[in-house]
Amino acid sequence: MHNTIDLANVKNIVSQIVAAHDIKTVAFVGCGASSSELYPGYYFLKDAAQELRPFHYTAAEFNDDTPAWVNENAVIITCSLGGGTPETVKSNHVAKELGATVIAVTHAAGSALTKEADYVIVHDFERNYAAKVEKMGYVIALAVELLNQTEGYDNYDAMIEGFDKIFDLCEEAANHAKGFAAEFGRAYKDDEVIYYMSSGASLNVAYSSSICLMMEMQWVNSGSFHSGEFFHGPFEIVDKDVPFVLLMNDGKTRNIDARALTFLNRFDAKVTVVDAKDYALSGVVPGCVATYFNPMVHTAVFRTYAEALAEERQHPLTVRRYMWKLEY
Amino acid sequence: MHNTIDLANVKNIVSQIVAAHDIKTVAFVGCGASSSELYPGYYFLKDAAQELRPFHYTAAEFNDDTPAWVNENAVIITCSLGGGTPETVKSNHVAKELGATVIAVTHAAGSALTKEADYVIVHDFERNYAAKVEKMGYVIALAVELLNQTEGYDNYDAMIEGFDKIFDLCEEAANHAKGFAAEFGRAYKDDEVIYYMSSGASLNVAYSSSICLMMEMQWVNSGSFHSGEFFHGPFEIVDKDVPFVLLMNDGKTRNIDARALTFLNRFDAKVTVVDAKDYALSGVVPGCVATYFNPMVHTAVFRTYAEALAEERQHPLTVRRYMWKLEY
Repeated sequence: MHNTIDLANVKNIVSQIVAAHDIKTVAFVGCGASSSELYPGYYFLKDAAQELRPFHYTAAEFNDDTPAWVNENAVIITCSLGGGTPETVKSNHVAKELGATVIAVTHAAGSALTKEADYVIVHDFERNYAAKVEKMGYVIALAVELLNQTEGYDNYDAMIEGFDKIFDLCEEAANHAKGFAAEFGRAYKDDEVIYYMSSGASLNVAYSSSICLMMEMQWVNSGSFHSGEFFHGPFEIVDKDVPFVLLMNDGKTRNIDARALTFLNRFDAKVTVVDAKDYALSGVVPGCVATYFNPMVHTAVFRTYAEALAEERQHPLTVRRYMWKLEY
Repeated sequence: MHNTIDLANVKNIVSQIVAAHDIKTVAFVGCGASSSELYPGYYFLKDAAQELRPFHYTAAEFNDDTPAWVNENAVIITCSLGGGTPETVKSNHVAKELGATVIAVTHAAGSALTKEADYVIVHDFERNYAAKVEKMGYVIALAVELLNQTEGYDNYDAMIEGFDKIFDLCEEAANHAKGFAAEFGRAYKDDEVIYYMSSGASLNVAYSSSICLMMEMQWVNSGSFHSGEFFHGPFEIVDKDVPFVLLMNDGKTRNIDARALTFLNRFDAKVTVVDAKDYALSGVVPGCVATYFNPMVHTAVFRTYAEALAEERQHPLTVRRYMWKLEY
């Protein structure tokens, strides 16, 4: 089957919004993994927009220090897989009260997140690895449509072509990666701290791999940072066998990642590289926009690495000490 | 003596820029600690601007994936303490080539960072703790002037009053903190990993405390995150005696920090709180703008904590394995 998302629906939603409002600001609001999966949409607008004002928020901060620009000229895109994250549900309310348009992206039709939203996009998740990056795909697609329908975007057709290719690529890449993933699981199962690095649109894949896959789901100590920041602090922790994972971009920030990798290898750190170029990203999607699709490849592929680590550690990704068990 | 910065110079620089250009975008570009010290200026505009477009970049990413909006309508504010950070020096060049206006903020008059800049602000550093937050103060002041002189800002007078008070407050707070700092040094000297959290304008004080003061200067494992993200991943690592530092805000995001603290205490984590309210921040600067001054208090005070930890560990903050010793 051909894995894809409903781009016509995205285009239609954005058409309705821009017909009714003079959109100046687009904010991406969520928590944890969902916050991270919003980042690529934010990054796209940060990079490509000449006039639109993009912002990225963890929901609690958006609610408690609500910015001055939340009004009828703003679109707020919120995400929550299960649709029940209280802070993000509240962000919908905060945004609506101030007259902004809210688009909720969730796996759970009818969930709390959908109640006050002007528009709802429901994505798949369980079916396969391609489905696990639908959320991110919809978020990027919304950013692309918002840009193209407000100020125009030269590489719009290239992005549409990219969306047609990227989901099958992610599915194939993730399945192809399982041997490497198993190797990662065996090699890192006893490590007490694992660092994550990336750059560009994939920065927050490193972040969510660190705070969700490691700290939350494996109770393994972890930190993450931009590979461009590596030489301005973190690299002093490097020593023989210190464990790192580098999510390497096949796009504009590749040289930044490569420089960090050279250093890690020079000092015999323990390094696992998940390289989007190994899956031919910039050959499959148009090269001029490949940089924006890296986080989808990294997310799909690294999911298999996390699964393999969980298997080796006999610690399922679904085990929690506190979440779902306590009020907090 | 009264600790302060030269606000008249800031006002004058911004007046010249807005007289010559229609400024739409303000980007804060730097690396490591300097990148973090730019964040409060970015946060101010993210929160308070209705029209201006603020962005925050690590310099390498700005250089390699230069955004579409860098032109004569953009101001780029760059920072480097010693003025020689190669990536940031290059950002000045990238920005100038595309017609943007560059303001360089540095401790080193005549350094490489000053060569291509349109305007240079030189700040103090060594004199005392107040001097250590001059850089951050100038960055916030530039953001305030840019906002006020383009679209106007209702709380401008309150911010100016805040600048008159904040440096003496930081100096007094840091000196007052030394007893608590010594206690922190003794309690954390043997910890193998220390986590940092904050929110609002202080988010990147947690980040720089983690990647610079811990990883770079103490070779201690560390991670950092927003206290609003704590319950969406990181909190699953919490257990008895797991070491945390919370930089608690006296401002709009205080409740977010407080919720994380309650959880840490409930499960007997090892927690050190640096609370801006203990130094009466919102009583000394006008309450309506206190939220923006938190990172100055946290930076000045936590510096003494890092000094005390270095002393206890007999590992001076100036020792490096790689920086200043190797080409990389």
